[in-house]
Amino acid sequence: MAKKNIKAQPFAFPTPVYIVGTYSEDKVPNAMNVAWGGVTSSSPPTLSISLRAVRQTYKNILKTKSFTVNLANETLIKESDYFGLISGAKEDKFAKTNLTPIQSDFVNAPYIEEFPISIECEVVDIVEIGSHFQVIGKIVNIIVDEELLDEAGEISIEKANLLLFEPISNNYFSTGEIAGKAFNIGKEFLIK
Amino acid sequence: MAKKNIKAQPFAFPTPVYIVGTYSEDKVPNAMNVAWGGVTSSSPPTLSISLRAVRQTYKNILKTKSFTVNLANETLIKESDYFGLISGAKEDKFAKTNLTPIQSDFVNAPYIEEFPISIECEVVDIVEIGSHFQVIGKIVNIIVDEELLDEAGEISIEKANLLLFEPISNNYFSTGEIAGKAFNIGKEFLIK
Repeated sequence: MAKKNIKAQPFAFPTPVYIVGTYSEDKVPNAMNVAWGGVTSSSPPTLSISLRAVRQTYKNILKTKSFTVNLANETLIKESDYFGLISGAKEDKFAKTNLTPIQSDFVNAPYIEEFPISIECEVVDIVEIGSHFQVIGKIVNIIVDEELLDEAGEISIEKANLLLFEPISNNYFSTGEIAGKAFNIGKEFLIK
Repeated sequence: MAKKNIKAQPFAFPTPVYIVGTYSEDKVPNAMNVAWGGVTSSSPPTLSISLRAVRQTYKNILKTKSFTVNLANETLIKESDYFGLISGAKEDKFAKTNLTPIQSDFVNAPYIEEFPISIECEVVDIVEIGSHFQVIGKIVNIIVDEELLDEAGEISIEKANLLLFEPISNNYFSTGEIAGKAFNIGKEFLIK
């Protein structure tokens, strides 16, 4: 296979579409679209997001030590993209989009009612990485639309139509089909 | 919409399927399937992975300060899953899968020839987060199968058939279709 080197740039795939919910000191809710983030440990379960210091979301987090990650779906693609286009210091993004911030049960941050899955996080550390501050949040609760739960009470992601992001072409992608079972489909190599 | 709280656990979506390539001190190549990771800053561009200290990959990284992230596609789903089923200390995973480790041009780690996209990373920091060590790598090169590049020399992700991982059901998912243009599709809310 012929290979080619392309420019070193911030890239991986998939990257998520995280809509991060925070409150200001005065309890004004804000939402921001964040692409740099992911799970960072199993125990405790942590989820991290990387933010520039100038962001309203970062300033809010320094005060409240809390945030939510609301996973964007296809239905909310326009609202989710808008949340990344302008600062919450300039516009009331909830008023503009008609979406509903709800006080979380466990952390001092709003989740967004219309989003299918919201993850409540309590900040445990902040690490400076180049241009960004990585905010490390302990996952303390996960809020799910009941219609996404199966009989065992687990999330059926295939019903959620969640979005992915590709940071070179700047395209959002939909989630595809189930392709296989992890920790299982590769077992044939163990017995070779 | 009725909501339900589910157990706090390590979860987000999408999470990636990163096949991490490293060398041991004696230049023995290894590959591991890592789900906890993502881009962590834009400038310099960094990509981070979280590993338990017991992993051969982590021991290798402490010696070489280098790793590659090879993005798993549907064709290589069985091999990619196998890379997460057993330690490189116990089996020669390249011999078992018949895949080909190639010395990277810029870092002291192998990329895997059969994978469509490989990202070369040079370790710039390691941060302890609970059960895991987050290894922060500066992206110094991206290697792409030529057939995935468009006329402008950019990656066409829709041709790459990359996998995603869902850590509650432990399913791999395929990438879906392009759903919209980021920093664009939400503009209508700006002029409301």
